[in-house]
Amino acid sequence: MYGLIGRMIAAPGKRDELLSALNGSIGHMPGCLSYVIALDREHPDALWVTEVWDSAESHKASLSLPEVRAAITKARPIIAGFDNRVETIPVGGVGLAGAK
Amino acid sequence: MYGLIGRMIAAPGKRDELLSALNGSIGHMPGCLSYVIALDREHPDALWVTEVWDSAESHKASLSLPEVRAAITKARPIIAGFDNRVETIPVGGVGLAGAK
Repeated sequence: MYGLIGRMIAAPGKRDELLSALNGSIGHMPGCLSYVIALDREHPDALWVTEVWDSAESHKASLSLPEVRAAITKARPIIAGFDNRVETIPVGGVGLAGAK
Repeated sequence: MYGLIGRMIAAPGKRDELLSALNGSIGHMPGCLSYVIALDREHPDALWVTEVWDSAESHKASLSLPEVRAAITKARPIIAGFDNRVETIPVGGVGLAGAK
């Protein structure tokens, strides 16, 4: 499995709009076992995204899906930056959709 | 919802043992929507744990479950520390077991 943890900083006041853009992209992404979007409790413009994929290849391929490309197009102008990005190797747990 | 992201550092060489202890605790935890354990790619003793609960209360209550107490007892002597801990407010995504 392939995991990503990271924080996305929206342009000031644009977190809700960024959230909508991201939510629009996560309908069906092949190989996506978990994708959680969360608000940062301290930073009013920050979102945490934690992802689990069956492989790094599935993650990479998702970036070419029409829904994801559309979301990236909408989100890009309202993203101020990224930080705390970590790649991980998930090994198990609860809530991994269809994981074996 | 209530979210936690954090890194656990095992005593040197004890990551696999810590992993087994944690895995033993996550059978059925009421209110747990997601609980993913992942290896850090850089630090040979570090594990990432990302959690989503229906509420902070469910998370707190889980710490009293017999399986979780047993895991904590096993894990405590082989945990060297914690870092990168963040509390979040999850708002949606893929792989949230039974989330409404």
